[in-house]
Amino acid sequence: MSSRLSIALAAGDGIGPEIMDATLELFKAAGVMNHADFIPVEMGAAVFAKGNSRGMSDHAIRTTEECGILFKGPMETPKGGGGKSINVTARKLWNAYANFRTFKTLPGVETVYSKAGIFIDMCVVRENIEDTYGGVEHRLSNDMIQCKRLISAPGCDAVHRFAFQTARRLGIKKAACVHKANIMKMTDGLFLDRFKAAGRDFPEIEQSDVIVDALCMNLVVKPQQYQMLVLPNLQGDIVSDLCAGLVGGLGFAPSANIGNHISIFEAVHGTAPDIAGRGIANPTSLILSGIMMLRHMGLTVPAANIENALLATLESGVRTGDFGDKTKPSLGTRDFTNAIVERLGNTPKTVAAVEVPAANSKLPERAPTPTGQQVIRTFKNVVTHVGGCDIYLDTPLSPLALAEEMQRVCQDTPFKLTLISNRGTQVWPTGSVYTECVDYYRVRFELKENVPPGSFGQSRCVALMDKVSEAFTICSYELLRTFDGVKGYSLAQGQ
Amino acid sequence: MSSRLSIALAAGDGIGPEIMDATLELFKAAGVMNHADFIPVEMGAAVFAKGNSRGMSDHAIRTTEECGILFKGPMETPKGGGGKSINVTARKLWNAYANFRTFKTLPGVETVYSKAGIFIDMCVVRENIEDTYGGVEHRLSNDMIQCKRLISAPGCDAVHRFAFQTARRLGIKKAACVHKANIMKMTDGLFLDRFKAAGRDFPEIEQSDVIVDALCMNLVVKPQQYQMLVLPNLQGDIVSDLCAGLVGGLGFAPSANIGNHISIFEAVHGTAPDIAGRGIANPTSLILSGIMMLRHMGLTVPAANIENALLATLESGVRTGDFGDKTKPSLGTRDFTNAIVERLGNTPKTVAAVEVPAANSKLPERAPTPTGQQVIRTFKNVVTHVGGCDIYLDTPLSPLALAEEMQRVCQDTPFKLTLISNRGTQVWPTGSVYTECVDYYRVRFELKENVPPGSFGQSRCVALMDKVSEAFTICSYELLRTFDGVKGYSLAQGQ
Repeated sequence: MSSRLSIALAAGDGIGPEIMDATLELFKAAGVMNHADFIPVEMGAAVFAKGNSRGMSDHAIRTTEECGILFKGPMETPKGGGGKSINVTARKLWNAYANFRTFKTLPGVETVYSKAGIFIDMCVVRENIEDTYGGVEHRLSNDMIQCKRLISAPGCDAVHRFAFQTARRLGIKKAACVHKANIMKMTDGLFLDRFKAAGRDFPEIEQSDVIVDALCMNLVVKPQQYQMLVLPNLQGDIVSDLCAGLVGGLGFAPSANIGNHISIFEAVHGTAPDIAGRGIANPTSLILSGIMMLRHMGLTVPAANIENALLATLESGVRTGDFGDKTKPSLGTRDFTNAIVERLGNTPKTVAAVEVPAANSKLPERAPTPTGQQVIRTFKNVVTHVGGCDIYLDTPLSPLALAEEMQRVCQDTPFKLTLISNRGTQVWPTGSVYTECVDYYRVRFELKENVPPGSFGQSRCVALMDKVSEAFTICSYELLRTFDGVKGYSLAQGQ
Repeated sequence: MSSRLSIALAAGDGIGPEIMDATLELFKAAGVMNHADFIPVEMGAAVFAKGNSRGMSDHAIRTTEECGILFKGPMETPKGGGGKSINVTARKLWNAYANFRTFKTLPGVETVYSKAGIFIDMCVVRENIEDTYGGVEHRLSNDMIQCKRLISAPGCDAVHRFAFQTARRLGIKKAACVHKANIMKMTDGLFLDRFKAAGRDFPEIEQSDVIVDALCMNLVVKPQQYQMLVLPNLQGDIVSDLCAGLVGGLGFAPSANIGNHISIFEAVHGTAPDIAGRGIANPTSLILSGIMMLRHMGLTVPAANIENALLATLESGVRTGDFGDKTKPSLGTRDFTNAIVERLGNTPKTVAAVEVPAANSKLPERAPTPTGQQVIRTFKNVVTHVGGCDIYLDTPLSPLALAEEMQRVCQDTPFKLTLISNRGTQVWPTGSVYTECVDYYRVRFELKENVPPGSFGQSRCVALMDKVSEAFTICSYELLRTFDGVKGYSLAQGQ
């Protein structure tokens, strides 16, 4: 590897500067600085305090975009005042679509599982942009609020491709797609389908799928059965923190947010303001994130050396005050780091050492900087036909009274009323007297029997909506279409 | 208690009949039949096989509705063929809005946590109807599928009220609301707000809230810190299975689905077809669900006696083949049950015995059967004003090209284009070149500065939509309103 690497560096708030100093000290001793420059940038509390609601200076944004890599310590999001989480902003701004976290039982870090003799070595790949994390929410009636859960085919493809490529690169033998496709049949069904499609190019990796609730039970009973889990955003958020708990908490688990242009490596634990500046913070999570970053950049030799030295240090009982055998003395951040530096070149004895490769890998090629937002697409040339529409009404009427009104409205249109549902349960034409309704109904109109699908476009639906709006508040609307002949909408429970 | 109780009884599939026989045997020995009649009903595989897609006969539905209580064994949902899960149908059909599950470390049931000396005694109350479980899904473009996440104020109120009343009834001292309101600010924000509102009537119960991912980490690290967790549907689904894992799996955790009219008590584990009919199945989960049912019906004396006998049996090392000390012999279902019957009147020695009350409690009063669907309401007399609309387009255009078109469309209307977002991230008027877009955009129109809110109703929005639809496919639409002056819609990331 000839060319030097540049990394934007944001130390973070609270204990951030201390643990970042420690990590850089270790990097230096391991020869990382022979290959890479770290360029400090301004992010976090100080930037928020200047009234910048993103918490990062323009220079920080530009530098990160030039480097393509950001290494960051923990940061605070100010409560109130419109400041937004830097993590969330960064993922969205830079399209860091995959969150990658590894979880490994560390020697000297006692957990419920280590006490039971269970050794954990797994990773989680989480989709980082879609799902309910788009934050698209609407109050639709006095009593009803909606959040849109969005899952796209190209969004799924990006994360699945990253997962399988990572499994191949790291020698991970099996990957499981985690989902709730038995309930969210279309959205999580798509996530699962695209996992299977992407997996066809990786036949050497054993592939399976598991429902998220069953997975969480399995994880607490027998976590060692999993190697890589691939999940949608919310489920991935929950499961990755669960997995952190299995190995001792967020202080012992690294995290990366991976994009095609910019990737972010960070400690996900808090800023621990209570112990900030006292020189006693535990830098393990940031060191592990740094190791992950070095591997990502092709610096596989120092990554392996640092990891072995860290493992050798932990197994010798060296510890900071937050973990380990409390009967033994604990070290400050600096001494803890020096203990790792002293062990560079050593390998651990009680756990498997990481193999040190003969040379660093090739520097990964960076995609050219886009000049404008790209539209990414998976399914093209699909034939769609309009089949009707779902209209959502804000009304306190009973289902029967509403059905009468709606049948009148659609009388002289190509549509008939086929369904009224409330909170997903059909309440007309059939329903149970026990179903309790709220002031937000879905009314479904579909083509009359004698009207073939594809007879016309959406204009008749908009005209119908116009008619309905004369007497009712329409809070929401969806066009019903077939895609290559398959209905693009679910049936109601009971329909 | 003078009047007799009636309970609809569905033994279930696979091992269902064996474990149900065992449970009824135990009930009989404990004197339950002096107070209650069990009326067998047809549900499950045999009913599905007759082509009934609900898996329950009309008689079963009628009987359950008359009794108000259904006690059921595990049931299969046939794969394919349109058969629907009986559990889901029952919750929706009978509005069983709260799922209640308890998790308690049992003597003789070894788990990772029992080995670490951690004793678990907690419960989960899960909202059972709303969230993404309404199954309202639409394919909105070639590449984008949406699932509606719906959270209503009366839906929240019902589950929170049940949770607090249950805590009071069972002497539970603290309850935590679990949520993801830092991301789903409006929907989970509502869930959390209504928890706090309901909690005001229960000042003796310590109340707190915790974000779901942090909770899951805490649960694997230190589960004994929680007593009652109250969650929205999906998060509750995940967390309750996680908790089952903490105490040894679904075979050791009871479950109830509670409604105002009909409540369902069931074993949530599978039908175990591989061992069905061999007389070796473990009836513990169904017995525990039965104990929960007896308490719910006011039969607190036999409930306590059976629970004490079960605990005394388990602590003595009596076991079925699926758990316990494998060096000791295991019993079949019948002998395991007889061992419990023999211990009726005994109390456990190694764990706390359940207090046996002097007399059964009063039979709970049942609400009168509704004659039609009720509309339940929380917020009334709210003043709403139209502020614009979000229109969602299926288009492969770039954000800039789309913005030009949309500005032209709204030129002679009271609206201006304020925002275009893609997957929740703002891409116009500002945005990052790194944001990757899919073929599904949100376009936000809001009132021009000189138009005061409340100047007109929704008709101008529908007219605008009509104009947009001349050149674009509108896959979705939402009315933007203020409710008592507060915006009923979220801003985009970056807005």
